[in-house]
Amino acid sequence: MACLQRFDDPKGKELDLFCTRNPIDSSSVAPQVAKILAAVEAEGDAALYAYSKRFDGVVLSSLAVSLEEFEEAREAVGPELKEAIHLAKTNIRAFHEAQRSSGEEVEVMEGVTLKRKVVPIRRVGLYIPGGTAPLFSTVLMLALPAKIAGCREIVLCTPPNREGKVHPAILYAAELCSVDAVYKVGGAQAIGALAYGTETIGRVDKIFGPGNRFVTEAKTQVAQGTCAIDMPAGPSEVMVVATTRSNSAFVASDLLSQAEHGPDSQAMVVLIGSDPDRWIEELEEQLERQCSVLKRSGYVKQSLEASRIAVVQEVEEAAFIANAYAAEHLIINTGDRVLDDSLVDLIESAGSIFVGPYSPESAGDYASGTNHTLPTGGWARSMSGVSTDSFVKKITIQELTKDGLKRLASSVMTMAAHEELEAHGNAVGMRLEGE
Amino acid sequence: MACLQRFDDPKGKELDLFCTRNPIDSSSVAPQVAKILAAVEAEGDAALYAYSKRFDGVVLSSLAVSLEEFEEAREAVGPELKEAIHLAKTNIRAFHEAQRSSGEEVEVMEGVTLKRKVVPIRRVGLYIPGGTAPLFSTVLMLALPAKIAGCREIVLCTPPNREGKVHPAILYAAELCSVDAVYKVGGAQAIGALAYGTETIGRVDKIFGPGNRFVTEAKTQVAQGTCAIDMPAGPSEVMVVATTRSNSAFVASDLLSQAEHGPDSQAMVVLIGSDPDRWIEELEEQLERQCSVLKRSGYVKQSLEASRIAVVQEVEEAAFIANAYAAEHLIINTGDRVLDDSLVDLIESAGSIFVGPYSPESAGDYASGTNHTLPTGGWARSMSGVSTDSFVKKITIQELTKDGLKRLASSVMTMAAHEELEAHGNAVGMRLEGE
Repeated sequence: MACLQRFDDPKGKELDLFCTRNPIDSSSVAPQVAKILAAVEAEGDAALYAYSKRFDGVVLSSLAVSLEEFEEAREAVGPELKEAIHLAKTNIRAFHEAQRSSGEEVEVMEGVTLKRKVVPIRRVGLYIPGGTAPLFSTVLMLALPAKIAGCREIVLCTPPNREGKVHPAILYAAELCSVDAVYKVGGAQAIGALAYGTETIGRVDKIFGPGNRFVTEAKTQVAQGTCAIDMPAGPSEVMVVATTRSNSAFVASDLLSQAEHGPDSQAMVVLIGSDPDRWIEELEEQLERQCSVLKRSGYVKQSLEASRIAVVQEVEEAAFIANAYAAEHLIINTGDRVLDDSLVDLIESAGSIFVGPYSPESAGDYASGTNHTLPTGGWARSMSGVSTDSFVKKITIQELTKDGLKRLASSVMTMAAHEELEAHGNAVGMRLEGE
Repeated sequence: MACLQRFDDPKGKELDLFCTRNPIDSSSVAPQVAKILAAVEAEGDAALYAYSKRFDGVVLSSLAVSLEEFEEAREAVGPELKEAIHLAKTNIRAFHEAQRSSGEEVEVMEGVTLKRKVVPIRRVGLYIPGGTAPLFSTVLMLALPAKIAGCREIVLCTPPNREGKVHPAILYAAELCSVDAVYKVGGAQAIGALAYGTETIGRVDKIFGPGNRFVTEAKTQVAQGTCAIDMPAGPSEVMVVATTRSNSAFVASDLLSQAEHGPDSQAMVVLIGSDPDRWIEELEEQLERQCSVLKRSGYVKQSLEASRIAVVQEVEEAAFIANAYAAEHLIINTGDRVLDDSLVDLIESAGSIFVGPYSPESAGDYASGTNHTLPTGGWARSMSGVSTDSFVKKITIQELTKDGLKRLASSVMTMAAHEELEAHGNAVGMRLEGE
């Protein structure tokens, strides 16, 4: 088992090095993705059927999942998983309902009334990757806030397996969240179908969801048109802020649960402590012990090779490093409740924060109710994770009375004149002529 | 004077044609922009000085605007313009302060507490184009919400003139809004400096502001890295929804104030009325009369050639067209207050709505208090204009007690097992061992 790469008090270029993400290169697939998108735009459904044959190895008779298939899924999902999904749904719904906003209204001057109205994005498309481990949890994370926001059309694309079927847990979750339609389309072609529309699949206004590099690159490309996307995608990552009093077994389990996402995942530690060697040794022993029983241990070891630990003396320094890294998932588990809270207050950049010894990342990944679609790769410096906000727009509205316009007139006309926008001034002057 | 292109009851492909934007092509400058960005990243300040010499025709002695220059600007701006700017500032501030949000806290189950905390984006960069008509109003529209949101560093880049100076109104507005520094850098090189940082200019987390196609393309390119941008840029546009009872002179003045923004601006009308010919004639007469006295009339005529009028019978049809077009600025001026209000209720997609006869777009462009940085080109279907929201992130936080985790445990472990993420389950199991 490789040791975690250790950085003592990293600053400046050392800190940059510590914060470096694993390189991703989705642009190498750009020409192929562009070709697929162009084919879907030109040929519609025909292109989707052709790509399914080629990439998914299946000849589909129809793109839309049928009522019978939904019914089969309902029967195929066991009671234990159903119960688990229902609990997650209840919590996700409670938290995302609290995120609804209602707009404002302000009369800034007599006769000048300004408002914002909150309007759902009408048509949204959700992409859910397929494969052996189907991300049905992501269906909940995207469809529930879409529904709460009030989106009128919620459609979902996911690749079929070789039998032309979709995993029952995905269908069960989609039905539970009142998704309007599920289509058996994966990869870049699914993103093209959602962005441009085909005979079967209606064009959407915004696309959400994770995917491989073809999907990611396709999302980037369609976002150059007029289809919005949730956020730039990148490999998942966790940072744990700990002290030598933290439970090293818990920390190890969090690092491993990140590492199992894939070989490019990053699991990072910031350790506060003046005598850290023994604790680091313990952590590495725990990693080894817990890893050895994992089915994906090969995978996990590869990911841990790019993992790092920073050792610092001060709480402020730990917060500085956490803000510089801007982790998708930030676990603050110092073994001291007061210290945990002061660290939370110091954090400015993170996707989601997990506080204390009993808040593992996996709680938020599945069932506590926070959203697991979060900014990676440092984007947490400027972006938020998916929330109910991601499914609405806010439109400003103004209504001026004649007197209200009079009160603004000289300001508007003076500013317009200085910006040399004469007709802007006229639009006001014209309305007040003879006054 | 060209007539407005008329569409009667446009539907389907006709409606698509009606809604078509003027083509924009910033990608033709992509290779040149990439070269400039790479040079700024590699050479820092030296590249900025070299590009200033080449593109702005001036050899600068320093990039940062000095205290003396701010003082000169304060003296150069006349009292009338100062008063105008102050009124605008008061209104913009009032509306954007009302947009502050405070996050939520929900205990979704006993021992499972979820929150969102609202955190300002630390470092933001504002780009303000130069030229003869300096957009000092945009300084207010970007710097005031940044300040209200609590951003720690607000810097502004704007190109110098041939004397190496920045327009005094821009400096006056920047100082009034407590911008931390103004740099004399324009074009793609300014965007590179803000995204990557140089010796003088610190790297920012998000870039805001309008610009020519070099600036627009540069913003698109840096957004592929980890620097966020406000929104995709495009030519400005207005749509007026009117009836044959609307004051045609007012409508004409609104179309002209849009058209003067540039030859690629679009000014659109949706007219509700069964006998529209006379009103359209009046509108065209008004356009001709009002245009003839404008200094930029050549410009304006060119823009009006791409303008269109849709004639419909029903209010719902008008709203349908307005939603399909998703205008940056939507003026609803039917000459009937009740009708105006029901139209506002039907609008789902627009950047900003101006209601009634006394709410010209220019009021919102300058001084009423709404933001004038708005989604163009149909992006209003999925995006909002700039607001205080644009300068913050919302970080989710969760804290579980041991009992809280116990309540979630079976749900998390079951879902993790079905997604084949074994270590995710272990992170929970480990914490509850022996229970």
